[in-house]
Amino acid sequence: MARQVAVCGPADCTDQERAWAHEVGTRLADAGVVVLCGGAGGVMAAVAAGATAHGGIAVGIRPDAARGPADEAANLTVTLRTNLGQARNAVLITSADAVIAIGGSWGTLSEVALAMRRAIPTFWLGGWSLVGADGQSVDGVVTVDSPERAVTAALNVLLDEH
Amino acid sequence: MARQVAVCGPADCTDQERAWAHEVGTRLADAGVVVLCGGAGGVMAAVAAGATAHGGIAVGIRPDAARGPADEAANLTVTLRTNLGQARNAVLITSADAVIAIGGSWGTLSEVALAMRRAIPTFWLGGWSLVGADGQSVDGVVTVDSPERAVTAALNVLLDEH
Amino acid sequence: MARQVAVCGPADCTDQERAWAHEVGTRLADAGVVVLCGGAGGVMAAVAAGATAHGGIAVGIRPDAARGPADEAANLTVTLRTNLGQARNAVLITSADAVIAIGGSWGTLSEVALAMRRAIPTFWLGGWSLVGADGQSVDGVVTVDSPERAVTAALNVLLDEH
Amino acid sequence: MARQVAVCGPADCTDQERAWAHEVGTRLADAGVVVLCGGAGGVMAAVAAGATAHGGIAVGIRPDAARGPADEAANLTVTLRTNLGQARNAVLITSADAVIAIGGSWGTLSEVALAMRRAIPTFWLGGWSLVGADGQSVDGVVTVDSPERAVTAALNVLLDEH
Repeated sequence: MARQVAVCGPADCTDQERAWAHEVGTRLADAGVVVLCGGAGGVMAAVAAGATAHGGIAVGIRPDAARGPADEAANLTVTLRTNLGQARNAVLITSADAVIAIGGSWGTLSEVALAMRRAIPTFWLGGWSLVGADGQSVDGVVTVDSPERAVTAALNVLLDEH
Repeated sequence: MARQVAVCGPADCTDQERAWAHEVGTRLADAGVVVLCGGAGGVMAAVAAGATAHGGIAVGIRPDAARGPADEAANLTVTLRTNLGQARNAVLITSADAVIAIGGSWGTLSEVALAMRRAIPTFWLGGWSLVGADGQSVDGVVTVDSPERAVTAALNVLLDEH
Repeated sequence: MARQVAVCGPADCTDQERAWAHEVGTRLADAGVVVLCGGAGGVMAAVAAGATAHGGIAVGIRPDAARGPADEAANLTVTLRTNLGQARNAVLITSADAVIAIGGSWGTLSEVALAMRRAIPTFWLGGWSLVGADGQSVDGVVTVDSPERAVTAALNVLLDEH
Repeated sequence: MARQVAVCGPADCTDQERAWAHEVGTRLADAGVVVLCGGAGGVMAAVAAGATAHGGIAVGIRPDAARGPADEAANLTVTLRTNLGQARNAVLITSADAVIAIGGSWGTLSEVALAMRRAIPTFWLGGWSLVGADGQSVDGVVTVDSPERAVTAALNVLLDEH
């Protein structure tokens, strides 16, 4: 049974984030991991493109009931049209053995928060930092500085679980 | 982009329903269709086994946050651990281009009803009949009498949509 | 802590169903029961109007993220804007101690089926009948023939649970 | 039609957060606002207790299918037993005209993030701060330093919308 990693990030992303997401997708596919994403554009479309370019499976878990525009749907092996709005973020995270987040946005933050809430190992590339009411950094999310390290860290977690 | 058919039916099913589900899975896989199911036992496990036995993709959309017992998980290419309870029935149906139901149960009935509510073509093998308050049969769900006819009818709908 | 009864039925209903729903709402409010409904028109708006006319609480659990048109929102004490589509039907049913369905529609049928799936006592006024693959009537949903009997039957169940 | 404010915060909270939540509940009830919360303990139970102590309506939107322990259920006027897990956070937020968060936790952060994602006015008392990848503070959530200011700010937003 294949392991599943959710890759989260904004639809409205930078070129660097898009390139990172594509590389994360290729590396996860090379490792035989199923890629889960939100099924929309930006980071989501890029990770799906990377995964399927390397023969992997990319699953898009969309917030609406549509297949989405052709450019978003093109590289999805499976499309879940949840029609749940942002409640789909919880479905995406709960289904994942590990989470890689790329870039910062409110939607991405909600997914990182839900992952930490469920204690799913989470790695953030180019993301936000959290400071508690006491002025101290909030621990939990692991910061990584390259797609390669994000994937290596996630794969190490999955190996440990076996 | 592959078409997706949801196959619904009880976890607690008869041997005939299990055999029907397996055959439906093989036929959908042969046609290159992605099989969506509820990710549990009985009809759900059988259709997944049939699909993957013929090289197809089987997606299990589970009600809980677990991977499920080994025998249910064995033949799922992807497992969505929705943690939505029976609200996952709506996610399963909304994601489908057509629905094949096998056998009768309250959960199956809820999926058939949601499919009709969304006007998704629905074919029922060994299912229940509905009689309106006026004593007349309620139209909508198409009754079929073999796995072959269920799949042929579903594929015809998908072809018409292209 | 107040008991909660879900009242389900079509948005597009007959005058008789609307009158039945209004009476069910008044009777539940008189008994101090919180009324849950789907928050849209027809049976849903009528039961809310009946409940609040008698000083009760009516909760609308809507499928979208809007407050709804003024005539649907007018008599709702609380509006849950779930944005879950028809997955909200499961939220409505799971929240109920008993279910009263009025009239027939696919959406209503999905709610009755989910209620039976969870073994929540369910009473149907002017509803559909179910016939199994063996030609026998499917047991479970209790048929009632007046709003008074629907409410009396639901209240008896709630009393028994105390 | 009453306005609705979601009050979010951890089940495992400090005494100060509990006191803040209670005061927020009383002030919202005094203003005729319906209080929505997650229906569990800590901040959630305290805001419900405050609201109902001042004659208000408190709605608990729980993650599971249970009524919850007696101390959590005691002050809820209505309990939605969503059975959606943390996907219920999205239902809670989408239903709110404004959000007040008290204290910091991963679950609370997910709710703040979902509120900002939907551009619902959000006020955070004793919460976390967010720093972007560029080292700059992320704007959006309004920090407040007392229950009184949290409620005043939320009420001002609701007034502006009329």
